Amino acid sequence: MTDRSGAYSEAQVIARLREIFASPDPRIEVGIGDDAAVVTGDKRQVMTTDMAVEGVHFRKDWSTGFEIGRKVTAANAADILAMGAKPDYLLVAVGLTGAEDMAWIEDLARGIKFEADLAGMHVIGGDISRSEKVVISMTAVGHCDKAITRSGAQVGDGIFISSLTGWSAAGLAILQSEIGVSSDAGKLAVQEFKSPTIDYQFDSVRATAMCDVSDCIIEQGRQIADASGVKLAFDESLFSISDEFAKLNEIASDLNVIIWQWIFAGGEDHVLLATGKDLPGIRIGAVVTGSGVSGIPSSIETSAWRHFN
Amino acid sequence: MTDRSGAYSEAQVIARLREIFASPDPRIEVGIGDDAAVVTGDKRQVMTTDMAVEGVHFRKDWSTGFEIGRKVTAANAADILAMGAKPDYLLVAVGLTGAEDMAWIEDLARGIKFEADLAGMHVIGGDISRSEKVVISMTAVGHCDKAITRSGAQVGDGIFISSLTGWSAAGLAILQSEIGVSSDAGKLAVQEFKSPTIDYQFDSVRATAMCDVSDCIIEQGRQIADASGVKLAFDESLFSISDEFAKLNEIASDLNVIIWQWIFAGGEDHVLLATGKDLPGIRIGAVVTGSGVSGIPSSIETSAWRHFN
Repeated sequence: MTDRSGAYSEAQVIARLREIFASPDPRIEVGIGDDAAVVTGDKRQVMTTDMAVEGVHFRKDWSTGFEIGRKVTAANAADILAMGAKPDYLLVAVGLTGAEDMAWIEDLARGIKFEADLAGMHVIGGDISRSEKVVISMTAVGHCDKAITRSGAQVGDGIFISSLTGWSAAGLAILQSEIGVSSDAGKLAVQEFKSPTIDYQFDSVRATAMCDVSDCIIEQGRQIADASGVKLAFDESLFSISDEFAKLNEIASDLNVIIWQWIFAGGEDHVLLATGKDLPGIRIGAVVTGSGVSGIPSSIETSAWRHFN
Repeated sequence: MTDRSGAYSEAQVIARLREIFASPDPRIEVGIGDDAAVVTGDKRQVMTTDMAVEGVHFRKDWSTGFEIGRKVTAANAADILAMGAKPDYLLVAVGLTGAEDMAWIEDLARGIKFEADLAGMHVIGGDISRSEKVVISMTAVGHCDKAITRSGAQVGDGIFISSLTGWSAAGLAILQSEIGVSSDAGKLAVQEFKSPTIDYQFDSVRATAMCDVSDCIIEQGRQIADASGVKLAFDESLFSISDEFAKLNEIASDLNVIIWQWIFAGGEDHVLLATGKDLPGIRIGAVVTGSGVSGIPSSIETSAWRHFN
């Protein structure tokens, strides 16, 4: 639904976006600019949608348009990866307040394009609207031969994460803290909060169940446990073997936070949580008989994380 | 991206939505509840996204949740129809303020489901977020053998609309007026503003170019003219042959508005504008050599329509 008021016309914005998102992929028969895009589909397709709202999921004074564009795109792409699928297409609806200038809109678009390129996705359509806060809603479409759902975890499987969780929560804690943390690890954490690094090459072919860790390991672990009828037994001693653990622990010490809060109950890491045998990444536990999750340090507040508003 | 605060939990809302949107369609391998939906795709797919924002595209004091759900779904489905395609799947991202109770959310969902059923679409995924105003962003996916774009209009074609435009603008004018119009025609107009009637059975197989009239005939006419390298010559005398014209004119007289303002420059009708020979609907002009559009009464302000905020 269009809104033609504002300093730039909708036509001007769409013309720039068509340039930025232009793709020579022969599967795109009609791209941006008509009522809808026309693309070559696939037999088994994977589709997901994810909305991000200013003041809830991002802040314009913390992140650039480019970083915001990357982050929302990454969150959508991660949901496609989490099904064991390959991302193909992306549609982007954006609500703008009218206070954003053309340069900010282009920066946002370039961030979307940058992350979409990493994911192998093409931006094929979109919508621009007026809203009181910036809202970005995307739909990603991918394809796979066989979907990896949350329900296939088997007793005897290991539990794996594609990389260490907690970085995004640490970055948020740094941005919120009075002290600030200017170490290399601190900078990395802030960057991960602004635009998480997605493991686009994670080899999930042997995974029995998989989830994108958008909330936290506890929440996504419970989802796999519930869907599979098993228990996910985490083992905190396994996390600390990871190279990243020591770096993240530096930040936790600086801010006087228990690292397990970030690792188990952080948010927006977009790391892949998978079960199976001999998967890549970090092994963090085992699938056992029972229900729910175990091995979470008792001090962890699982409901503590509420975005930053 | 999830937000777990609020009176109802995200899990509760998702559980209700899974019930409301449950579909036995065998093409849906994984529906709502995993990281992404898994569906059977098609060789040539059509995809579109459309965002609607409270206070810009709808008002909760004017429309019920059901009507709002229908309207946004209709706008998305119409873009699929406008490509000569059949709607298949719908993904829905909703930002809620936290003030909406569960009954309102269910009403919204039922409106989405009602209109999706009319369109032959299945709701396969979604996202719920927190936002300061209600935001609804949808992506519709359909399929076709051959897409009808805006660029195929031929000199000698007729111009057709699937039904008379202007009803939605008339409804908005009634809602905004001090007087109000309580005639049957007035009630119909208000209803069309709240939830437009989409011509899901419009036979577009012989159309050479087609557009969804989301803005207005002038705007969408120009888009077809520009994309096709022709002129769209409208003839106002042809409109008045339509049965609907007299009814719409009653409202225009009551509100002291020139009917052509609504017909040519109204908004959100989601009528199909098509070119071709012997199409169904109302013939409103001819495709001729030249560029742009002609036959618009000079009193019409094409930039007058700006939603209602």
